[in-house]
Amino acid sequence: MLSKTRIAVLVSGGGTNLQALIDAQKRGDIKSGEIVLVIANSSRAYALERAKNAGIPAAVITKKNTGGTQETFEAAMIKALDEAGADLIILAGFLSILTENFTRRYPKRIINIHPALIPSFCGKGYYGLYVHEAALKYGVKVTGATVHYVNEVPDGGEIIAQKAVDVLPGDTPETLQRRVMEQAEWILLPRAAETVSERIMREKANLTGGKND
Amino acid sequence: MLSKTRIAVLVSGGGTNLQALIDAQKRGDIKSGEIVLVIANSSRAYALERAKNAGIPAAVITKKNTGGTQETFEAAMIKALDEAGADLIILAGFLSILTENFTRRYPKRIINIHPALIPSFCGKGYYGLYVHEAALKYGVKVTGATVHYVNEVPDGGEIIAQKAVDVLPGDTPETLQRRVMEQAEWILLPRAAETVSERIMREKANLTGGKND
Repeated sequence: MLSKTRIAVLVSGGGTNLQALIDAQKRGDIKSGEIVLVIANSSRAYALERAKNAGIPAAVITKKNTGGTQETFEAAMIKALDEAGADLIILAGFLSILTENFTRRYPKRIINIHPALIPSFCGKGYYGLYVHEAALKYGVKVTGATVHYVNEVPDGGEIIAQKAVDVLPGDTPETLQRRVMEQAEWILLPRAAETVSERIMREKANLTGGKND
Repeated sequence: MLSKTRIAVLVSGGGTNLQALIDAQKRGDIKSGEIVLVIANSSRAYALERAKNAGIPAAVITKKNTGGTQETFEAAMIKALDEAGADLIILAGFLSILTENFTRRYPKRIINIHPALIPSFCGKGYYGLYVHEAALKYGVKVTGATVHYVNEVPDGGEIIAQKAVDVLPGDTPETLQRRVMEQAEWILLPRAAETVSERIMREKANLTGGKND
């Protein structure tokens, strides 16, 4: 009997990507994993409402409420993740930096969605609306989104999936952001969540199988 | 009466992009411009056969047959372009470097096709098969092609059009190159040639109109 991958979703804001994951789980498109925890790094994140509405446990963990340093902040997150038995951590618009202390603890167990076709418009300083501003300023006609594993290099981990989205005449960073969300992020992220959950589920089963031999 | 943009196509090898332009002209998809000259920087370029078969004048201009320096090479090309009355220069797999002396002479009159989604995998050292090798090594799932104006920065001029192409499991640089050609380059380049030809045709008409006022 395979036991589902336990997914924690880390969020900072409105949580539209979280909603896409919740909806996919309800539809059965995510069937190898189960969202067991939402962590927000702001008590005002609307994502917390979305978690509540879906009956998913949620925690607010901020630097401020955990001792004030990056170390205590990450330690509090690790504690919450361990307590929830999380196997897979999904960064779904999570705008805090995570250090190597955190990321090295979860090799190929953290995935992130970036609103551009990596290696374009990625790395330090490229997040949120700034990514779309940069794409428009450069004048690209095609952009998109990328789901990738998280390692110690910002936006530098192995790519899992990408989807292209056309830039249209008259686009603003806001209209482009919206189109990339609708046409790429909300499709790619649930799909990648299922793919990675499936892999982790099998790995867990193999480990258990090994113990029983 | 509008007079068509006079197009020169610069090539180095097989000339499949040249063929795409010739075919588009035959079909009437390029109607604002007319290919009046093909220049190859190698006497062995199969593109020369394609030009001949289409009844388009072709010249072989190499560093060797023009005095041995970049300056004499570019001067010979400029002479040939001037004699043909070229308004638009299309680099269609032209693997020689062009200096500012050349590019500054034709602002927004030189276009190039690059087999990647600029700003990914572009700039010095990224040409031909190397572009696709780099994309596969990086692990991108989406690549494509870009048509852009040529200025003094390698692959740095304004983007005219881009088209995305999926990378597939098992792709080699060769299979990926072929797919990017078929699904992007041969579609994008003729379309961009028409768009830019149309702009130049109108500019020429306005200049003539101005003289007559």
